[in-house]
Amino acid sequence: MLGIAYDGTDFSGWARQPGRRTVCAVIEDTLSMVLRHDTRLTVAGRTDAGVHASGQVAHTDLPSVPDPNRLARALPSDVRVHSITEAPPGFDARFSAVRRHYAYRVCDRQWSANPLRRHDTVTWPRALDVDAMNDASSLLLGLNNFVAFCRRREGATTIRDLQRLSWARDGDVVTATVSADAFCHSMVRSLVGALLAVGEGRKPAEWPSSLLKAETRPSTITVAPAHGLTLTGVDYPPPDQLAARAEQTRAIRKHF
Amino acid sequence: MLGIAYDGTDFSGWARQPGRRTVCAVIEDTLSMVLRHDTRLTVAGRTDAGVHASGQVAHTDLPSVPDPNRLARALPSDVRVHSITEAPPGFDARFSAVRRHYAYRVCDRQWSANPLRRHDTVTWPRALDVDAMNDASSLLLGLNNFVAFCRRREGATTIRDLQRLSWARDGDVVTATVSADAFCHSMVRSLVGALLAVGEGRKPAEWPSSLLKAETRPSTITVAPAHGLTLTGVDYPPPDQLAARAEQTRAIRKHF
Repeated sequence: MLGIAYDGTDFSGWARQPGRRTVCAVIEDTLSMVLRHDTRLTVAGRTDAGVHASGQVAHTDLPSVPDPNRLARALPSDVRVHSITEAPPGFDARFSAVRRHYAYRVCDRQWSANPLRRHDTVTWPRALDVDAMNDASSLLLGLNNFVAFCRRREGATTIRDLQRLSWARDGDVVTATVSADAFCHSMVRSLVGALLAVGEGRKPAEWPSSLLKAETRPSTITVAPAHGLTLTGVDYPPPDQLAARAEQTRAIRKHF
Repeated sequence: MLGIAYDGTDFSGWARQPGRRTVCAVIEDTLSMVLRHDTRLTVAGRTDAGVHASGQVAHTDLPSVPDPNRLARALPSDVRVHSITEAPPGFDARFSAVRRHYAYRVCDRQWSANPLRRHDTVTWPRALDVDAMNDASSLLLGLNNFVAFCRRREGATTIRDLQRLSWARDGDVVTATVSADAFCHSMVRSLVGALLAVGEGRKPAEWPSSLLKAETRPSTITVAPAHGLTLTGVDYPPPDQLAARAEQTRAIRKHF
């Protein structure tokens, strides 16, 4: 069970792709080299190109636990394995997960954006009304069909339980905290894109939730830029429920 | 009067150097282009290569105040001019300043370093004792001759009033807050280098202050890496004292 953090800037996302630098390939190749053992990871959240993680979780079967310092030296500086612990029986990083947490950072004053945070903060050219964004966000909570906010993939359900979606301002930076049982492809960035339209006054607070009635993805939703998004954490049930949870999840959905 | 922030990673410091990308040259050239007026800046703190700033201050004479949005679009994303205000009479960004503030960030667990903060946080391979570092720091406070902690430059005084030097831990990140009337060259990084030796137990807490008796720079002090250092702010006196302060400073020192 690996706790993983990365700066997604120079990665083509998590999943292996031929000829591309991906987080999965870098960690698998480094672990395989350090342990002299072919390693394949199962991950909680397959992030897109440019998306970051502070609390990613993966699992694999290892012949021995690598020394974290040695692993850190072998990895490039834009990816860290910050914890390696023995997983409880039945643990599956993907299918045992009960909740994923994301953060999305936007600075709404172009000239005051902190240059040191430009890699994980989107600069927005217009002022954002956080109260309006929170009003619109609260209408999206609960078990809904988020097909309007998903890039559809064959066989994947788009019904998700959105448990938290709230915005907070700290100076010129507005941060969304988003939690759900799982997210379909581009869901967080589509929700953020719709809510930014509310925040800048282009759309009323009721508009994003009105799209929950849609049966396909409307062209009016802009997917917000990848580099504002960070996977901050994944929740798992108590050890005695891990195997049952994994079995349940596998039965409900083949893809997420 | 300009408030400036930059990510120092890809800059050869503040000061103009032929053939090098420097913060001063980038801002001066951009202002000159936007205003069609040759612009030369006077800065509060000439930072070294790799050092960052969130609260740098500079002044210049401008024929008109540029639109901050237009300036932001013209500047590269690793430097921001976050405020442009008319300076009070007698204001000199360098000589009117009464105090400079710096922060220095160190993560003392290599495998848990946040990849998104690697540009402004030094990774230290050994655990640091913050209490010992604070004990050693308090012995350095006050008006002292910091020649042991300065790269000497012809004609520059090394007597400085160190007003604050304290360390705080947040998880695996230890941050120093450092304030003085002014700093000589490499002074913050030399102080940090000596205090890191205390923090990891190589030197006793009394060692850094014992060097205040030295008349030259001892070879036992290691200058800490540039990228952990950020200029966070500059203090100025009330407007009616600006001119007097500038005159006083100019009389005391030619260089800092």
